[in-house]
Amino acid sequence: MGIILGVDIGGTDIKLGIVEGQKIELAGKIPTRPSEGPKIAAQRIVSWCKEHRMDKSIVASGIACAGLVDREAGVVRVSPNLTGWIDVPLRSIFEEILETKIVIENDANAAAYGEWQAGAGRGLENFVCLTLGTGIGGGLVLNGKLYRGSTGFAGEIGHMVIMEGGPVCSCGRRGCFEALVGSAAIISRASRMLEGSNRKMDDFGTQPTVEKLALAAVRGDGLIREVFKETGYYLGVALANIVLLLAPQAIAIGGGVAGARELILAPAREALKRNVMHESMMNVRIVPAELASNAAVIGAALIASHEG
Amino acid sequence: MGIILGVDIGGTDIKLGIVEGQKIELAGKIPTRPSEGPKIAAQRIVSWCKEHRMDKSIVASGIACAGLVDREAGVVRVSPNLTGWIDVPLRSIFEEILETKIVIENDANAAAYGEWQAGAGRGLENFVCLTLGTGIGGGLVLNGKLYRGSTGFAGEIGHMVIMEGGPVCSCGRRGCFEALVGSAAIISRASRMLEGSNRKMDDFGTQPTVEKLALAAVRGDGLIREVFKETGYYLGVALANIVLLLAPQAIAIGGGVAGARELILAPAREALKRNVMHESMMNVRIVPAELASNAAVIGAALIASHEG
Repeated sequence: MGIILGVDIGGTDIKLGIVEGQKIELAGKIPTRPSEGPKIAAQRIVSWCKEHRMDKSIVASGIACAGLVDREAGVVRVSPNLTGWIDVPLRSIFEEILETKIVIENDANAAAYGEWQAGAGRGLENFVCLTLGTGIGGGLVLNGKLYRGSTGFAGEIGHMVIMEGGPVCSCGRRGCFEALVGSAAIISRASRMLEGSNRKMDDFGTQPTVEKLALAAVRGDGLIREVFKETGYYLGVALANIVLLLAPQAIAIGGGVAGARELILAPAREALKRNVMHESMMNVRIVPAELASNAAVIGAALIASHEG
Repeated sequence: MGIILGVDIGGTDIKLGIVEGQKIELAGKIPTRPSEGPKIAAQRIVSWCKEHRMDKSIVASGIACAGLVDREAGVVRVSPNLTGWIDVPLRSIFEEILETKIVIENDANAAAYGEWQAGAGRGLENFVCLTLGTGIGGGLVLNGKLYRGSTGFAGEIGHMVIMEGGPVCSCGRRGCFEALVGSAAIISRASRMLEGSNRKMDDFGTQPTVEKLALAAVRGDGLIREVFKETGYYLGVALANIVLLLAPQAIAIGGGVAGARELILAPAREALKRNVMHESMMNVRIVPAELASNAAVIGAALIASHEG
């Protein structure tokens, strides 16, 4: 097994990693600039590789991308965060400029694969990985295999409806898991609760982020702790749905929102407990993801290595 | 392969079948009388078998049972419709009085297995079977295998929350799929809508059932059609959640509620379409189950034959 290129194309940044074994030997980050189109983005990735040439040659590349990724066809069908990237033939774009075997994969699937192989899901038969951020991504490992379903789009847990008629989601529907637990939901919850006690959102800077809120909560801000507690409750409702359907051994929680750690995970476990029907269903661990923001880079590389 | 006994223990009746190949050669039904306990029920099953002795001997028995069935241990942990059946060692009870190999299984899993092998799911790799009745049961076939998850209790789709804070469910929680689409929900919806237009629930007899309502709808009762349309909407929301998570090739709908056929399936498909995020996810067929009330009997027998 040689070295592998792992790439994770998100709405803002492209993360890159030279992966050897199960570790990133060299990591990088370049802007995505989706409006410039996928070809320019691919060229910038190749330039990064040339700048950081290592002694060994790259034997395979795994490209993870946000959105509905048609792995068989090698095409990104649509991506909420990559405006204009519709039916993009990502694999052939890369094949033209990178002389390696190319595998493309949905970013949440790649993250789940990474956590399963090298992180919080090691050795498990049934494992779910959630990435909580602006969007909520999900990846499923079932019966010891990454589960993609018949369309290849399984694991879109973020748009599972848990509150029919609830708050509007980025997808246009109402009451999705993401509309209650995604970054935007947390920020608007914080804004509402701060207002209710005559405090201002400005306390968290001109661009309040979930990371800043999480830091305040960790440092003891009682009101912001309440924000994460309420968020944790809804996370727990979603976790219960996952447990009822799939009964995994563990669910790993990663992404920016997970920065609040136990402040969100403890109430989530509590809500999960109240929302499954019987103690025997509670045989599931809710754990923080371990690979931080590198999960999809490592996972994409490992998929390219194992399945490519 | 010889003949197999298939048994489906529900809250009211025990359905029995002598299964040969994939067909029921001889079917029966006896009352469950859960309060008499599982041993008496097992003895009545054996009596039925003796009364209906066939020339060939039974080589295996598959016992499907409502509730949380711990297949490995051979124990029914708890069952909402079998009051008092807590930690019942069902397999050993049968082993003592039936001289065949015994396999026990959750009824919804057995029904899914039956529909997959001999009904609406034949030949599919990824298939979900829902049984809509007083309770809502779910069974999952993923990657060409009945999926039970790590606890063995996967597929409890009926208690997936789709309307946090919504109507109270039999399980004590709020807004479960079952609380919106189960028989009780349909009857209370009908009652509410009839009252709203100065009609009486009594029109459907002293004990109105979903079957009677379905018949009225099929015969053209506009208001009852609305009841099924609204029910179909919530069914569609739940179907969308299943499609987003598992992307199966087909979802089969069986059970009493499914008697309304297209009156509930058409609005469900419509809601599903509006609730998945992209047309490429719509590559799933929503179909009526084919084995009617025999699915779990056939499925339990086939599981005993294949996996026992």
